[in-house]
Amino acid sequence: MSSTSTTATASALLAEIADVGRDAVRGGYTRRVFDPAELELRAWFTDHAVALGLDVRLDGNGNLWAWWGAPGPDAVVTGSHLDSVPGGGAFDGPLGVVSALAAVARLRSAGFTPSRPFAVAVFAEEEGSRFGVACLGSRLLSGAIDADRALALADADGVTFAAALTAAGLDPTRAGLDEAALARIGVFVELHVEQGRDLVDRGVAIAVATGILAHGRWRLRFTGSGNHAGTTPMTDRHDPVVAAAAAILATRHRGTAALSRTMQGEASAAAAPRATVGRIEVIPGGTNVIASLAELWLDVRADGEAAVRELVAAIGDDARAAAKLEGCAFELHEESFAPQVTFDPAVRDRIAGVLGGPPLIPTAAGHDAGILAGRVPTAMLFVRNPSGVSHAPDEFAGEEDCELGVDALVAVLEDLL
Amino acid sequence: MSSTSTTATASALLAEIADVGRDAVRGGYTRRVFDPAELELRAWFTDHAVALGLDVRLDGNGNLWAWWGAPGPDAVVTGSHLDSVPGGGAFDGPLGVVSALAAVARLRSAGFTPSRPFAVAVFAEEEGSRFGVACLGSRLLSGAIDADRALALADADGVTFAAALTAAGLDPTRAGLDEAALARIGVFVELHVEQGRDLVDRGVAIAVATGILAHGRWRLRFTGSGNHAGTTPMTDRHDPVVAAAAAILATRHRGTAALSRTMQGEASAAAAPRATVGRIEVIPGGTNVIASLAELWLDVRADGEAAVRELVAAIGDDARAAAKLEGCAFELHEESFAPQVTFDPAVRDRIAGVLGGPPLIPTAAGHDAGILAGRVPTAMLFVRNPSGVSHAPDEFAGEEDCELGVDALVAVLEDLL
Repeated sequence: MSSTSTTATASALLAEIADVGRDAVRGGYTRRVFDPAELELRAWFTDHAVALGLDVRLDGNGNLWAWWGAPGPDAVVTGSHLDSVPGGGAFDGPLGVVSALAAVARLRSAGFTPSRPFAVAVFAEEEGSRFGVACLGSRLLSGAIDADRALALADADGVTFAAALTAAGLDPTRAGLDEAALARIGVFVELHVEQGRDLVDRGVAIAVATGILAHGRWRLRFTGSGNHAGTTPMTDRHDPVVAAAAAILATRHRGTAALSRTMQGEASAAAAPRATVGRIEVIPGGTNVIASLAELWLDVRADGEAAVRELVAAIGDDARAAAKLEGCAFELHEESFAPQVTFDPAVRDRIAGVLGGPPLIPTAAGHDAGILAGRVPTAMLFVRNPSGVSHAPDEFAGEEDCELGVDALVAVLEDLL
Repeated sequence: MSSTSTTATASALLAEIADVGRDAVRGGYTRRVFDPAELELRAWFTDHAVALGLDVRLDGNGNLWAWWGAPGPDAVVTGSHLDSVPGGGAFDGPLGVVSALAAVARLRSAGFTPSRPFAVAVFAEEEGSRFGVACLGSRLLSGAIDADRALALADADGVTFAAALTAAGLDPTRAGLDEAALARIGVFVELHVEQGRDLVDRGVAIAVATGILAHGRWRLRFTGSGNHAGTTPMTDRHDPVVAAAAAILATRHRGTAALSRTMQGEASAAAAPRATVGRIEVIPGGTNVIASLAELWLDVRADGEAAVRELVAAIGDDARAAAKLEGCAFELHEESFAPQVTFDPAVRDRIAGVLGGPPLIPTAAGHDAGILAGRVPTAMLFVRNPSGVSHAPDEFAGEEDCELGVDALVAVLEDLL
């Protein structure tokens, strides 16, 4: 897997890590932050960055920074993340990292000398797949989450983020808002695989982002009475799985109803609301056991915070009513919330000018760029995904499109640097 | 934990194993067959049996036999199981095993000499919590499941039953129908904690079983299209979690409707149908991911095979319709089925006579005694459970009732031996 080539294409770099973190059960990749696969990718990134003459540093929040020359201030920073959702695709995250490495190699080969500080960044736990809060590394860095709350987050095995930082050789007391790191960033540009079909429909390879829908994650907890599935009469049950099932159907119905209302208005389909339950835990989880506890994780996105909160409240009301009917207790807990993001219009227009007027599109997917946009000028480039699928093994970007992405990133960096 | 006492009470024996296999997450106990906790209980059982002068043997299906003198034919056998459901109670299984040990100790102390061969049996994987098929050890022994099918069963980590047997030092090619072992059993008597409130309501400590409702387990598999929870419009989803939720509600509705029909007839509440979903797997299971696969495990019990099959067919039809509506594929797979059991009336009446006319009650819970009843005369004793709860930490039997259970078992064994 190791390579000291400094002129590899983005696709060739992705091919080097094609065997790391394969998920035999789900298909695709499972690369959770600080798990062996993600640590292997960090080491691989560091090797490549060092071979390109970059100086790699790990910040107190678990984010990697590969500096071309001395760090900041007013630096141009590009990059993305290396972790994945469970059973995710090969491109979400890694494409932005390998494109940054390929762009640096091109700039080096061309004898380019930056006139501003420059770094490639790799952010920790972008997907939130291990500790439940998406963009955890960039949230901590920018103060969007409190360090104490983040350090207490636990993964499915009960390992806290504090313990995971310690195991990775970091000091948990250093985690949190990092004003010095923020002050070094003049502008952040993240290249990412597109996660919908907009560019396929337009027949264009590269787009520039306008913003990110407001979105968040909520945990719905139903507590009932565990008992024997055989001996307990149907009329004497307080089964949290039944209440949770009603809440899942409410999520679909409320999400679709909100979509219908949106489509009667002026908004585009890209900005329409989404509501999803993709993770369920049932305790104890035996076939012949009425469960005592069921938990659902709810993902909601919409055009503006008010629309998100209205949708979550409606789903919560339905879930509470279902729990009451079943004689179960109900709790609704917000795990994370990211407000609507509008990327810096000046940077967006400058990049669009460099790229000759690419499509300008919104996205409903969260990104570290969306978190950082609250503190520093930020922009995003999207690379066409012919499958339209993301967070699944079918996620894809063709070799030619990946190189067009590197071309675009090189042009943007040459302009900004 | 070790003890060489041969006169301990049932409660004292349970206290010796009170720390083995505690489940910190679910509460109660998780003792899966051949996992370290269950292996520790097997070793503990063997130590006690050897101290009582019994000769302990492991059969080809993973069941333990502790013989008083030479093995069979026409032996009296008592015993139960040591494995648990996830987060189960302390009594379901172990009470029958410790009561057998306590009864042997009493018989030894009294200088009793059996006139027939006698053994205490511990059956493997009674709960089906690891490999999905309940009463796996007794099913294999009695030919109620094909050895090839059983050996291919895999646990949640992909470990097959064949591999688990091998890891436990057994030869998988020896697994399967064991006519020699069956021929040794003249009568099997299983003592078990009651799993409902019948004895509490009657104010009586001990009952004799009449039979077991027909019951089985089915796996419902919904296959959809994995995708990004943010970028995929509500109208462009094939979400297997939504179809699975509809199937869970159908399980409740169909189960309750079947109950209502039953209660309008002649049947007792104890024989009314039950339908439960207590286990769910969602793949990949990420908060920000529309799942590609959802699986439910369905437990159905009713008075007779026809009633069970009618209820499963109705739930299956509803699930298939929900899957079709969502654009998901649907499969319904029978994991196990146990026909209605009526325990041997002659043995039942002989035991009831010895015990002075205890209540005769049916149960909706499956037991190894129910499986063996297809091949050998079989009976069961129930010990009052004041909580009425089973398969959960609240499962209970008081110390005095446990001793009344041992008294009853000693009286039955003295009569049969």
